[in-house]
Amino acid sequence: MLLKVKSLKLLTGKPVAILHKKTAKMLAVYPGERVRIRNKHSLVAIVDTVKGLLKENEIALSSEVLEELNLFDGYAVDVSAEPPPKTSHYILEKLNGNHLDYNKLFAIAGDIVHNALTETEIAYFVSGVYVHGMSDKELADLTLAMVRSGRQLKLNDIVYDKHCIGGIAGNRTTPIIVSICSSAGITMPKTSSRAITSAAGTADVIECLAKVEFPIEEIKKIIAKTTGCMVWGGALGLAPADDKIIQVERVLSLDPEAQLIASILSKKIAVNAKGVVIDIPYGLSAKVKNLAEAKKLQSKFEKTAKFLKLNIQAVLTDGSQPIGNGVGPVLEMRDILAILRREKSRPLDLEKKSVFLSGLVLEMAGKAKKGYGEKMALEILESGRAFKKFKEIIEVQQGKIRELQPAKLSFSIKSDKSGKIVEIDNKKIASVARASGCPSDKASGIYLHVHLGTKVSKNQPIMEIYAETDDKLNFAKDVCKKLSPVKIK
Amino acid sequence: MLLKVKSLKLLTGKPVAILHKKTAKMLAVYPGERVRIRNKHSLVAIVDTVKGLLKENEIALSSEVLEELNLFDGYAVDVSAEPPPKTSHYILEKLNGNHLDYNKLFAIAGDIVHNALTETEIAYFVSGVYVHGMSDKELADLTLAMVRSGRQLKLNDIVYDKHCIGGIAGNRTTPIIVSICSSAGITMPKTSSRAITSAAGTADVIECLAKVEFPIEEIKKIIAKTTGCMVWGGALGLAPADDKIIQVERVLSLDPEAQLIASILSKKIAVNAKGVVIDIPYGLSAKVKNLAEAKKLQSKFEKTAKFLKLNIQAVLTDGSQPIGNGVGPVLEMRDILAILRREKSRPLDLEKKSVFLSGLVLEMAGKAKKGYGEKMALEILESGRAFKKFKEIIEVQQGKIRELQPAKLSFSIKSDKSGKIVEIDNKKIASVARASGCPSDKASGIYLHVHLGTKVSKNQPIMEIYAETDDKLNFAKDVCKKLSPVKIK
Repeated sequence: MLLKVKSLKLLTGKPVAILHKKTAKMLAVYPGERVRIRNKHSLVAIVDTVKGLLKENEIALSSEVLEELNLFDGYAVDVSAEPPPKTSHYILEKLNGNHLDYNKLFAIAGDIVHNALTETEIAYFVSGVYVHGMSDKELADLTLAMVRSGRQLKLNDIVYDKHCIGGIAGNRTTPIIVSICSSAGITMPKTSSRAITSAAGTADVIECLAKVEFPIEEIKKIIAKTTGCMVWGGALGLAPADDKIIQVERVLSLDPEAQLIASILSKKIAVNAKGVVIDIPYGLSAKVKNLAEAKKLQSKFEKTAKFLKLNIQAVLTDGSQPIGNGVGPVLEMRDILAILRREKSRPLDLEKKSVFLSGLVLEMAGKAKKGYGEKMALEILESGRAFKKFKEIIEVQQGKIRELQPAKLSFSIKSDKSGKIVEIDNKKIASVARASGCPSDKASGIYLHVHLGTKVSKNQPIMEIYAETDDKLNFAKDVCKKLSPVKIK
Repeated sequence: MLLKVKSLKLLTGKPVAILHKKTAKMLAVYPGERVRIRNKHSLVAIVDTVKGLLKENEIALSSEVLEELNLFDGYAVDVSAEPPPKTSHYILEKLNGNHLDYNKLFAIAGDIVHNALTETEIAYFVSGVYVHGMSDKELADLTLAMVRSGRQLKLNDIVYDKHCIGGIAGNRTTPIIVSICSSAGITMPKTSSRAITSAAGTADVIECLAKVEFPIEEIKKIIAKTTGCMVWGGALGLAPADDKIIQVERVLSLDPEAQLIASILSKKIAVNAKGVVIDIPYGLSAKVKNLAEAKKLQSKFEKTAKFLKLNIQAVLTDGSQPIGNGVGPVLEMRDILAILRREKSRPLDLEKKSVFLSGLVLEMAGKAKKGYGEKMALEILESGRAFKKFKEIIEVQQGKIRELQPAKLSFSIKSDKSGKIVEIDNKKIASVARASGCPSDKASGIYLHVHLGTKVSKNQPIMEIYAETDDKLNFAKDVCKKLSPVKIK
């Protein structure tokens, strides 16, 4: 059917064709279905319909379509119904509980990256994976499919990496581990995320001192100089299907185990890692609630990695409370600097965990003998070499070490009775920190004075809330009162 | 956050807010999530993001939002992140395999009707229902929830109705049944659909002679005059949540049994039916493949109806081949007229099935004694009273009985050998009829000369294809050749 292009400014970010309801009926297409639009070239767009604003012989196209087909107002285009892509059948297979092979998963990942599948179709895929899970082989195939449908960081060096599944407030081990391991000569191009539901992601924390957004070519240069980096992974195009799938999962806050594993491993394979240490913290307020669940996840990681010929060591760690004292970009960076600079006030729990995980990476990379990694890591830290390496990386990432201060407004939360700290809820702490302005107000957040087991007397300060404005400080106080993240008995 | 309204012509049909990516980050919202927009009043819109075209302090809103909040270019609005509606948690429960109660299902149906749930969220609901099914009680609750979140046709008379689950080519029993039953004084406000994947829906067929789109108030007047009608149900707003759910299901051609039942029963309860005869044809190329499946569906219908205190009789019928000779709006109407006018060439299979189903309705409504319904139906048909009633309904629906001719171009498909007809595939026949122009070219379609078991000699015509243009005729011939819907042995 020949239709006349009507140019409206349609800001959709994907190919969309808007038709009059009657025209759609003539073409036998419904909203959410597809049409092929032909000029010299052709492309497929998703249909939406309207009753007014368009005549029956008109079609409105989103900017991407106009640009790609070089169309202008008043041009005629041929429009016909287009069947859904083959991958929609594969998605149905998954929803029916069948296993998908590599070729099908690669086709799905490709169609997701190229906007050929709609969010609704991706939601059906996510549902299938969520309800039926994935076999080990299938999960390995999905991981590879996500890697190969995106860009990859190809370095000549052998790469080692670490990753935490997240969910613990504070817990900013990455900058310390990268500094220690790079000091020992390990190539570690660490890509991190920004906060999604937490108070800060590693990228938000590093950004307090240095730039974190670099194109892939720049990252290669950084690694050539320092062997380590700490950058934001978001804009690199590594496993981009994963980002889109996560966006659709976020709608219902779904985080299927299979997708979690594929997401983590794909980003590691995309930077060509040979070995990865994976930190699985578990605890009541962590992502993984108990030891049994943590062991299940550990085993699934190991089995999947085996199919991928990726050397991984998935370790179970204590996720029963926040790690470190600071929660929020600047407050976490202050913890890190205190550890690297061997200050007296440094949080020893964060130091201990960072040294433990660094030791595993050193052993995996053959820099330390089995059983001696932790000792080597601590030596590197104590000698000041880790701090030197950290400074070097910050400088190469166009930053500079400087003293960071928490936000100017603060409020002290005090113990309402004497007793022992029996609970510090990770999620509640994150909620209070977000209420105070995290992650966008970098100097806002929480400083914890206590840990599980600490004995407190009545009116003793248990944490400080920092915020940039009175409104945010009051809001965080209210949230804190309502949630009471710390329990005393 | 205060943002400046930028007016773009956004034809979305739902509340959408477009933000600069950086602004969305500041608000901590992602595409597909929600913001609340406050002026004097407030409403919730779904977020999309762009990098260009908008400044960081600007927001583009779809026309519905501008109108409802009375906003114009340059106005300032307060924008804040809005959590997903409560119903998204209920959807997650369903996806997790839990049962939902009436209140939760009613909330979901309401949010679907008011555009408060996105298509992605509805897809998760559909997935939950598709994968886990629904208990009888749950299904009855969903049915009521869909009825009560829409408009209803409230008549003073006691209403009886019939419905076929669909999938059989031809099979246009409704106009005959409505004519017979209304003649006997039964109130039967029949609402029908248009073709979705078939060659014609009942509404498309009736439209060959009369109008089918009326507002609810008009339908009441029609019923007051004739006790029967044959109208399009699509625009009446009966169980509107169902229409939206079907739109989302269509993406993967899903048709979960639970949704099928809720869809049918909700439309019947919305017209206040006391009893309904439900036709479940089964056969290899039908919706229901075999007797066992048909019995399962029958039992699920009966159990659900019991919860709804709705008197239903679900009958299993032969769906192994098309019913009647014509397939396509005009060709099916010609079959109906031939039966109503007692013409010699009338298709006896369609007549027999219509009389059988009419008999069940007559018995259910107490117009005929048990076992005598079919006899009474045939008498009404043979006496000409059914045809008189049909004419009356057509006239009240602003139409007129007139002779209808098939499309001017035709092609005869001939037997390639002598033998017996062993297969006439419903889906393939529908595909050929659609290729010929159905349902929009009303006079296009297929006329079948044969049924299962008919003996044919070589080169004997087995069917005619009708089309309005050479292109469509050739296309239908090609599709027919490729699919070969009729098999001879």
